Amino acid sequence: MKMDNSPPRGTRDLLPPSVAVRDHVFATIAEVYHRFGYQRIETPALEDIRRLSGGQGGENEKLIFQVLRRGLSGSLEADTAVTDLVDLGLRFDLTVPLTRFYGNNHAALPLPFRSFQFGPVWRAERPQKGRYRQFVQCDIDLIGEPSVLAEAELIEATTEALAALGLSGIAVRLSDRRFLSALAADSGLTEVDRRAFFTVLDKLDKIGWDGVRKELAGLPAQPVDSALERVAALVGLAADKVADTLADTVPTLDEQVVAELATTVGCLDQVAGRRELRWEFDPTLVRGMGYYTGQIFEIGHPASTSSVAGGGRYDQLIGRSLGREVPACGFSIGFERIVDLLDSSPSRQSVAVLFESDVPLARALDVARGLRADDRTAVVLPRSGKLGAQLGRLEAAGHTSLVYLRAGDESVEERPLGR
Amino acid sequence: MKMDNSPPRGTRDLLPPSVAVRDHVFATIAEVYHRFGYQRIETPALEDIRRLSGGQGGENEKLIFQVLRRGLSGSLEADTAVTDLVDLGLRFDLTVPLTRFYGNNHAALPLPFRSFQFGPVWRAERPQKGRYRQFVQCDIDLIGEPSVLAEAELIEATTEALAALGLSGIAVRLSDRRFLSALAADSGLTEVDRRAFFTVLDKLDKIGWDGVRKELAGLPAQPVDSALERVAALVGLAADKVADTLADTVPTLDEQVVAELATTVGCLDQVAGRRELRWEFDPTLVRGMGYYTGQIFEIGHPASTSSVAGGGRYDQLIGRSLGREVPACGFSIGFERIVDLLDSSPSRQSVAVLFESDVPLARALDVARGLRADDRTAVVLPRSGKLGAQLGRLEAAGHTSLVYLRAGDESVEERPLGR
Repeated sequence: MKMDNSPPRGTRDLLPPSVAVRDHVFATIAEVYHRFGYQRIETPALEDIRRLSGGQGGENEKLIFQVLRRGLSGSLEADTAVTDLVDLGLRFDLTVPLTRFYGNNHAALPLPFRSFQFGPVWRAERPQKGRYRQFVQCDIDLIGEPSVLAEAELIEATTEALAALGLSGIAVRLSDRRFLSALAADSGLTEVDRRAFFTVLDKLDKIGWDGVRKELAGLPAQPVDSALERVAALVGLAADKVADTLADTVPTLDEQVVAELATTVGCLDQVAGRRELRWEFDPTLVRGMGYYTGQIFEIGHPASTSSVAGGGRYDQLIGRSLGREVPACGFSIGFERIVDLLDSSPSRQSVAVLFESDVPLARALDVARGLRADDRTAVVLPRSGKLGAQLGRLEAAGHTSLVYLRAGDESVEERPLGR
Repeated sequence: MKMDNSPPRGTRDLLPPSVAVRDHVFATIAEVYHRFGYQRIETPALEDIRRLSGGQGGENEKLIFQVLRRGLSGSLEADTAVTDLVDLGLRFDLTVPLTRFYGNNHAALPLPFRSFQFGPVWRAERPQKGRYRQFVQCDIDLIGEPSVLAEAELIEATTEALAALGLSGIAVRLSDRRFLSALAADSGLTEVDRRAFFTVLDKLDKIGWDGVRKELAGLPAQPVDSALERVAALVGLAADKVADTLADTVPTLDEQVVAELATTVGCLDQVAGRRELRWEFDPTLVRGMGYYTGQIFEIGHPASTSSVAGGGRYDQLIGRSLGREVPACGFSIGFERIVDLLDSSPSRQSVAVLFESDVPLARALDVARGLRADDRTAVVLPRSGKLGAQLGRLEAAGHTSLVYLRAGDESVEERPLGR
């Protein structure tokens, strides 16, 4: 009986050509991150449901795949609460597991710790084109480094990884949560209003300046106008003027914030000088996650409407698990978006070793063994059907050359397949 | 507030040294399998719960992590069945997903298809030392190849992968389900009794011959004695006598079964001649899974009490998903057992670039950049605390050399760390 063999709604099977591209992207990124001293860790796919629902995940907490407690069966009693049935969930990002991991293992890790994570996460989102319920995230985090070394290094490592993949035309956008807060406070917005202000400003990409003004209509007009005016005036700021202009724009801004931005800017200039890389200070960059506490950054690519990487400093998040504050900064590459931008991977040569039915199998295996000893790919295949058609199929399957074995002919001759 | 940061019961965090060993094992196996033409595929972690509970998974079906339907909340009505709450589950092996994958994608795959799978599976087993509820499986399967080429190639590829990892002293055990069935039938056991007979024989490793005889006491004595006697007589059979002896032992045995075993034996001899590899025909090898239909094999290692790899032919399994029979044969490496046998991975050189606080960050980053340009690992670290203590920590963290940057000293001198 034929069954429906589709994977579950919103998930997908990955065929060899897709996996080859993904493996190539992963290996390239991993090699760059290793050169920067980042070490890969792994955490389980499942986490305690209370941890996943702890408020750190924002909207993602509504999208958790929840796992039933073991040992339940038969029928449930009346008024059983759904929450009583569940004890675990599939992780929806790699940040919640990282903070737990660090809390659990910090004593065995170097300080600072350079963490590299790569793995699937799950979100029960409404399925739509190009978005899947299981997808891969790729994060680096520098934990325990309070200085702006973290920001500068993470930006360099990430742009270096993207460059190693052959992506050109990437552009870095830089902002700072402390600067944004100071600007809004200096404009006269209360703390509550500031949060609303930045939630709306974060949508600028989608709704434009008019949309932003409309959505901010409920807040006090004068502070909003002042804040928006100062933000707008900073768009397109020249690189060498960033530090001075920010200090001028918000006189109450902490000197350290200015000094740190100036350092990051200097390092960005250094990196941009070596690569085809643009960067800008972008006062409209907010980034959604509530946990950021300092500099924030995103990377864009001309062929992608949304960003291909994003991150920032989050100095208070690890403390929630560990019980004492540990500074941290992270950068996440949008792995699935990068894979979509690259449509192929370096192809591998492959020799098809075709043998007629009267050739002993051991001989065919031996010929293939000799080819593999030179680190080549060799695939043993029995002759079947019409020769021309079979050669066509071999070529279509990616084989690049042929060794054809016949009884009574001891020669082993390799010839190219196809054009 | 400090929280309990342990991972969920029965799961574990993997620290950098563990991940490095695992990555090394995976890369080594993958390189060998690629040379044999196996192509990696991926399937989602989640599968439809009805498919997972379809009977193919044997005892593993009792260990499924079940996923709650989305959209449930609040309290449940009386007599809600637990099964009504669940629509998905986490896969407990890679074979059930492979048969679905092949049914879903066969039109886009070459025939025969050489599949390589590597990924986590989940089983809610009682946690115990060395066994985890999330662990990795590593399978190769040759789908669509009816001839014994499949068996011979899978055994060679798998032994080659283990040899590439530096594992020596491995031993292959070979048997055949068709031979076992013929032997038991020829001894006078009915089909039902044959199944019971092999379920018990499969436990020989654990309970010994006396235990086997005791557990078989309920079956007709004469056929059981005859079958056991013939099985016992075949233990330790010399390689060059396998085919003839099996045909003599069970005169009703199909000639093709004998011919195919002779071919596999010939190929095993060829492989064993090149490597330090032992092999034997083992009539007591049964392998638990009900779906095997032909030759079956396991690989043992002197340092492991259980097998490190196992597989066999399963010609009827894919048909259950596809609606028509497709021959198939597979071999699974016990990835976690292999990782346990190897305690370290090739280590990587790493330069610590230490800079005093009066050295500009940009200079330290630039020095590290120069080192990385030679494909080396360079890690930038601010000087802190006592120099001797910090150098000790750097060495303990795995750094192998040091560049120490001080203000007013423009030299960049690298010196080894530690002994």
